[in-house]
Amino acid sequence: MTVTLSATLAANEDIERRRRAGERVLHLAFGEAGLPVHPALRDRLAAASEHNGYGPVAGAAGLRESAAGYWDRRGLRTDPELVVCGPGSKSLLYGLLLAIGGDIVLPMPSWVSYAAQADLVGSRPVLVPAPQGEGGVPDPDRVAAEVRAARAAGRTVSSVLVTLPDNPTGRLASPESIARLVEVARELDLTIISDEIYRDLVHDPALPYTSPADLAPERTVITTGLSKSLALGGWRIGVVRLPTGAHALRGKLLAVASEIWSAPAAPVQEAAAYAFGEPEELVERVNLSRRLHGTLARAVHACFAAAGARVPEPQGGFYLYPDLGHLGLGGSAELTKLLLEEHGIGVLPGHAFGDDPAAARVRVAVSLLYGTSPEQRMTALTSDDPLRLPWIADSLDHLSRGLAGLALDRA
Amino acid sequence: MTVTLSATLAANEDIERRRRAGERVLHLAFGEAGLPVHPALRDRLAAASEHNGYGPVAGAAGLRESAAGYWDRRGLRTDPELVVCGPGSKSLLYGLLLAIGGDIVLPMPSWVSYAAQADLVGSRPVLVPAPQGEGGVPDPDRVAAEVRAARAAGRTVSSVLVTLPDNPTGRLASPESIARLVEVARELDLTIISDEIYRDLVHDPALPYTSPADLAPERTVITTGLSKSLALGGWRIGVVRLPTGAHALRGKLLAVASEIWSAPAAPVQEAAAYAFGEPEELVERVNLSRRLHGTLARAVHACFAAAGARVPEPQGGFYLYPDLGHLGLGGSAELTKLLLEEHGIGVLPGHAFGDDPAAARVRVAVSLLYGTSPEQRMTALTSDDPLRLPWIADSLDHLSRGLAGLALDRA
Repeated sequence: MTVTLSATLAANEDIERRRRAGERVLHLAFGEAGLPVHPALRDRLAAASEHNGYGPVAGAAGLRESAAGYWDRRGLRTDPELVVCGPGSKSLLYGLLLAIGGDIVLPMPSWVSYAAQADLVGSRPVLVPAPQGEGGVPDPDRVAAEVRAARAAGRTVSSVLVTLPDNPTGRLASPESIARLVEVARELDLTIISDEIYRDLVHDPALPYTSPADLAPERTVITTGLSKSLALGGWRIGVVRLPTGAHALRGKLLAVASEIWSAPAAPVQEAAAYAFGEPEELVERVNLSRRLHGTLARAVHACFAAAGARVPEPQGGFYLYPDLGHLGLGGSAELTKLLLEEHGIGVLPGHAFGDDPAAARVRVAVSLLYGTSPEQRMTALTSDDPLRLPWIADSLDHLSRGLAGLALDRA
Repeated sequence: MTVTLSATLAANEDIERRRRAGERVLHLAFGEAGLPVHPALRDRLAAASEHNGYGPVAGAAGLRESAAGYWDRRGLRTDPELVVCGPGSKSLLYGLLLAIGGDIVLPMPSWVSYAAQADLVGSRPVLVPAPQGEGGVPDPDRVAAEVRAARAAGRTVSSVLVTLPDNPTGRLASPESIARLVEVARELDLTIISDEIYRDLVHDPALPYTSPADLAPERTVITTGLSKSLALGGWRIGVVRLPTGAHALRGKLLAVASEIWSAPAAPVQEAAAYAFGEPEELVERVNLSRRLHGTLARAVHACFAAAGARVPEPQGGFYLYPDLGHLGLGGSAELTKLLLEEHGIGVLPGHAFGDDPAAARVRVAVSLLYGTSPEQRMTALTSDDPLRLPWIADSLDHLSRGLAGLALDRA
C-alpha cells in the first residue's frame, strides 16, 4: 500500500495557489457541480438540525425507502433493506472494495479514486480500455481475457467496475457493451459495480441508458449520490443498491461502515430523503442543471475540436477528454504543465486516470465556468443562452486563445 | 482481514428488537450522549446550509483555527496546519492506522472499534492491561516488554493508544502512568495516539489531567470530536491534532482521507467551528452535561456496588465497568445474556472490548437513562436532583432489582 496525495489534489492545490497569487487561471480541473443548493434542501437541512443520534449504520429508514423509490421509478424494483447510505458514494465504493475483496477490473481511463482506493485496501486493479469510441466500460472481451490470465497467474479477481456516464470521458457506454459485459461477468462470476452518480446528468434524455442491474440484478451493485445532480458534494451523501439477495455482502459492508464512518450526518440524511423522493422543484432543478452542463460541455468540445484535438462528443456529466497528440508536445504531464504555465488553463493529466502517460490526453471539467458567485451561477443555470453571459464568454475566449497559442508552442 | 458485524451492533440490535416487541429493557449498551443539540448549534447549521462545495480535505480553515484555539486553551499550542478534520474521530483513527502503518498497542479492555479497525487495515493489535486500578492506558512496563518481544519476533509495532478518560472503564489514567508511557514510547520510538473525546467530561474538573501531548508533543496525536461533550454523534465531526512537525504524517492522512471520505459535511464544519470556539452558552452546556453524566454514573456505580460487584469508581464520560465474578455465573457472554434475558438489562460484554471472555465484566453506559423524549432529557440536564425524576428513579430501581435478582440466579 502506498499512501500519497493524489495527482488531482496536487494539481488543484497548484491551481489555487496560482489564483491566489493573482494569475488568471481557467479552472477546468475539479469535478464539483458548480451550482448552488436548492432552497428546499436548505430548508430540510435546517428543519432536521435537531437530529443528533448516531442512527442506523445503513442509514435512516426514510432515506433508504426514498432511495429505493428513486430506483423503482427507473425500472429497478428495490428493497430498502438492500440500500446502504454513506457519507458520499466514494466512502461506499471504498467499503465495497473491502467487503467484496479481491482484485477489481477498472476501465482505463477511469476516475482517480477507484485505483487509489484499491491501492489502500491492498487490491491490484486490472486496467482495461473501453471499446472504440466508448468510455466508462472496460472492453468486455478484453475483460474476459485479462481476468482469465490474472486468475491463471494465481490472482483473485472478484469485480468489475463501470461508470455510467463516465468521468473522465463524458461518454455513456452503449447498451450493447453493457449487455456483453454482463455476459462476461456471469461467465466469470464477477460482481459488477456500476457507478451511476452522473446518471441524471445524461445530456440527451432520449439516449438509451442501460444499467447492468437491468440485466444482472443478482450481481450488480449500483452507487450514486447527490453531489453531481443536486450539487451537494460538500454535504457528503451517497447511497448504494446491493444485488438481489446480497444479505451477506450487506452485512460485510455495514461492518466496514460501522468501523470507519458510522453513517452520514443525520440532518443531511433527512434532506437527502426528500431529494431522492424527486419532488417537482428538484426535478426541475436537475433538468436545468443537465441543460447547463450539456451546453457548456458542447461549447468546450467545440473549442478543443477547433484546435484540432480528437475529442469524443460528451454525452453526460460535465467532462471532456480531448487528445492533443497531433501537436507533438509530449505526454499528458507535459501537456498539462504547458496548458497551466503558459496558457493559464488548469486541467488534469490523463495519466492520473490510469491512462498511458505518453498519450497527450487531459480531463477537462466545465462546471467551474458557470460563475464565481452564487448569483452568477444561478443566472447561468436559468439562462436560455448561458454562452452569452460575459463571464462565461470570457472564459471560453480564454480557452480558445490558449489552445490556439498551444499550437504555436510546437514551433 | 475479517469483516463481521461488531458485537456492539449485534447487541444493540437485539436490545432494540426486544424493545419493539414490547419487552421492558433498560438500555445500558450504547455510547450515545443522550442529550439534545444546543439551539445555538442548530442555528449555525441552518445558517451554513448554503455551503455545498467539497472544500479542503483537511477541513475548512475556520474549523482548523477554532480547534487549534480549543487546544491552545488547554495549554497545547497548536498550529492549525497540523489539525485535520474528519466525519467523526472514528474515521480519523482509521485514517491514522493506515497512515502510520504497523501494529498498534491497545489497552485491554479498550473501545471496540480500535481493534476492529486494526483488523480492517491488516494490523495486529498488541493488547496490554492497564496498571492496577487504572483504565485507558496500557501498563507502560508491560508495553515495553511486549513491544520488544513482538519486534524480536519480526513484527513492526509503530504506535500505542490511550483513551483519556476511558471507554469502557470510565477511568482517567494518572499523570504518573502517562509520564511513564511517554518514556517508553520515546525509548521504543512509538507514536502515541491519545483519544481524548471524553476529556471535557471528566466529572471532577480538579482531577489532574495529563495528555501525552503535554510531555511528548513530537510524537503524540490527539483525536477528539463533539459527539460526547456536545452530543453531536449523528453530525459526524472529529478533529485530530498531529505531532509537532508531522507534515509527512499529515500528507499521508490527507491522502487516505481524500480517497475515503473527502471531508466532513460542510454545514457541520461551520457549526463545529463555532463549538470549538467555546462560547459561553456551550461551555455552560458542557458543564451541565458533565454534571448529569457524573451524577448518573455515580448512582449506577452505587447500584452495582450494592450488588457486590467490584467496580472502579467512574471518573469521566458515562461508562462503568463492573466485575460480577463473585456471583459465579460464567464469563462476560453468559453474564450479558442473563442480564438481558432474565432481568431486562442490556449491557455489552467485556470480551467485545478485548477483555478476557472468562471474566464476568460488562460495560454499562448510563447516558440512555436521561429520558426518552427531548423534553425529559432537557429536564434531566437542568435538574439539580435528576435522580428524583420519576423516569430516572424507575430505571435505577429496575437496575437494582435486576441485580438483586441476578444474585439469586446463582442458586
